[in-house]
Amino acid sequence: MTPAAADPRDGIGWRVPGDETRIAGRADGPLAGLRFVAKDLFDVAGVPTGAGNPDWPRGRPVPQAHAWAVARLLDAGAELVGKSITDEVSLGLLGENAFYGTPLNPRAPGRVPGGSSSGSASAVAQGAADAGLGTDTGGSVRVPASFCGLYGIRPGHGRLPLDGMAPQAPSSDTTGWLTRDARAFAAVAEALLGDGPGPLPTRLLIAEDAFAFAEPETRAALGPAVARAERLLGAGRDVLLAPQGLSVWGRAQRTLQMAEAWQTFRPWVEAAVPRVSYLVGRSLMTGAAAPAADLPWAALMRDEARGRLAQLLAPGTVLCLPATPGPAPSKGLPLAQMDRARDRINCLCALGGLGGHPQIVIPAAEVEGAPVGLSFVAARGEDRALIDLALALAEAA
Amino acid sequence: MTPAAADPRDGIGWRVPGDETRIAGRADGPLAGLRFVAKDLFDVAGVPTGAGNPDWPRGRPVPQAHAWAVARLLDAGAELVGKSITDEVSLGLLGENAFYGTPLNPRAPGRVPGGSSSGSASAVAQGAADAGLGTDTGGSVRVPASFCGLYGIRPGHGRLPLDGMAPQAPSSDTTGWLTRDARAFAAVAEALLGDGPGPLPTRLLIAEDAFAFAEPETRAALGPAVARAERLLGAGRDVLLAPQGLSVWGRAQRTLQMAEAWQTFRPWVEAAVPRVSYLVGRSLMTGAAAPAADLPWAALMRDEARGRLAQLLAPGTVLCLPATPGPAPSKGLPLAQMDRARDRINCLCALGGLGGHPQIVIPAAEVEGAPVGLSFVAARGEDRALIDLALALAEAA
Repeated sequence: MTPAAADPRDGIGWRVPGDETRIAGRADGPLAGLRFVAKDLFDVAGVPTGAGNPDWPRGRPVPQAHAWAVARLLDAGAELVGKSITDEVSLGLLGENAFYGTPLNPRAPGRVPGGSSSGSASAVAQGAADAGLGTDTGGSVRVPASFCGLYGIRPGHGRLPLDGMAPQAPSSDTTGWLTRDARAFAAVAEALLGDGPGPLPTRLLIAEDAFAFAEPETRAALGPAVARAERLLGAGRDVLLAPQGLSVWGRAQRTLQMAEAWQTFRPWVEAAVPRVSYLVGRSLMTGAAAPAADLPWAALMRDEARGRLAQLLAPGTVLCLPATPGPAPSKGLPLAQMDRARDRINCLCALGGLGGHPQIVIPAAEVEGAPVGLSFVAARGEDRALIDLALALAEAA
Repeated sequence: MTPAAADPRDGIGWRVPGDETRIAGRADGPLAGLRFVAKDLFDVAGVPTGAGNPDWPRGRPVPQAHAWAVARLLDAGAELVGKSITDEVSLGLLGENAFYGTPLNPRAPGRVPGGSSSGSASAVAQGAADAGLGTDTGGSVRVPASFCGLYGIRPGHGRLPLDGMAPQAPSSDTTGWLTRDARAFAAVAEALLGDGPGPLPTRLLIAEDAFAFAEPETRAALGPAVARAERLLGAGRDVLLAPQGLSVWGRAQRTLQMAEAWQTFRPWVEAAVPRVSYLVGRSLMTGAAAPAADLPWAALMRDEARGRLAQLLAPGTVLCLPATPGPAPSKGLPLAQMDRARDRINCLCALGGLGGHPQIVIPAAEVEGAPVGLSFVAARGEDRALIDLALALAEAA
């Protein structure tokens, strides 16, 4: 064993190195006793926001105020117990941070936790917190929820204020959360969405193209969870989610997201010339180098996807699909395999950024001993119906 | 002052962080009393070679033998006093390492030292060593020599064995050295080239396009040094170095060099997915993304450049040009200004990789209080004549 053989990416924690953040919630709030972590893209007053990159905080003022979501949870009585590792500047779906380590996926220790809300998922899955605040632009809550066997939500786009959350691609950015159980999932929903329980969805659609795209073992393993949803909501109807192709949707979303991300990060990159992992640098350059002619095409495809989702998801309807094509990949894959894993995940997650509908992931199955989640998408504005569905399915289990 | 404001790139040392290398030379060798440093691309037995990047040594065996040049100097009696910082994997001409800091340019402390042999130049300019081993692929000895006011040589391509030196672009890679004075320059030459003094060059050419390309203040400041060379060698004859354009030569060299560098580093990048500065990552991607059709063009332009240099540089002839277009740029420039500085330097340095001729830089002038060097190129095989020219010019000064 030589020191040169140590890989800093083999970290097992969830916490930002050096972080000691701990803030009590308001006494006797409704979330009293609930411990939460905040992804290091959320401002906490008096603590530099790190955004997962060592050259991000340099030259930036230390936040003077909490991010909206942090303040809201503290005000509801929850206790903030730390800031959690994120993929660098939220660019990543696997959860490997080359500077701060790969947070442990306790349900599948040799595999990635999923990202970019990797540390929040890890902290919750390890039991170090009951809830984790995350962000989801292209799948950053949904993917770690699926890989770590958690509940997770990407609220409808625009549903929650994003003040104090570092942006990536504003037309897709959302604040979400992850929990181990459905009750905590609903308790946080009440604090953040502000809605109480309501009626369950009444119609179930099953995205047959998305199930066909998943790995065969995952498709099979999710069958019993789909059957439970059918017992609750009535028989599902098979539909095509993306008539143009999930790969086409994935391409449109990635084109728009990376171009927007470049607009967001360009001033920083060009002034600070930061250290980045090669993977993240390449994603930034993908956005920088996007052919101008691709953007109008991608915007038109987004229009088509929005129309398709609005058509499918009338009020009271939910659409069901695999959250990810399979369970978490192994840690430390070579670049080409990381690319392929990310691209496949993106095909199933693209509907989030393209359509802006609320979407949840629930723990649903295991494949080779590793978790994989089932996802439900609702009509715009029906975020709460998805929470109630998660509660009802948990009670029925 | 908040800790977040600290910039790790504001380092002032020359030594690889944590390095404690010190190896005595053979007793009573001809270089006894001469202290040298080795750029961290050269193997030293028992010391991991870092190559300027934290993810380079991981998984690589610790060298069991010294690099050829290191062994040769130790065997000649010189003492190795440390391993010096290099630009990441030798990709860079400015000398700013985002991981290990920017070595001090003691002659111009607010400016970069030049790279990629930045730490070797800094150590020698600071007096911490008498000689520094460097590598020069696209200018990595010549540029720091010019910016730090040192003597530096890029030997003819193929002149010295490169065993134990990390490659970048093998068709351009060379091992060179830097010193503060002409005597040490010649002493190291005797150990590495193995030649004793010989006749001086007899004909002087002046590259008028290269002087025209330099900054006006630099062109003017180099005038007296050119006049000293003319007093020694006779009146110089103005010639066009690059009839096709220095910018065309620069483009050909950069195209070939980056494509070759990608071949060299691709297995590492794809397996380790390393942390890199954005600048270095982008250079790697430039090589990865080079249009295939550009490579045959660049190879043809190299043929033209070789033909031109062979035509100009008959035995006994030396060609004189500014080593760099001006003195060192400021530290910490924004990306676009770094790009522009590198591209302009590359136009004057491209002849090295394209032609493979031996080339030296000598301290020659100051502009705004910062050093800038004059360069001489000789016929293939006449490395030693350039050393003798440096000695003669120093004695005449």
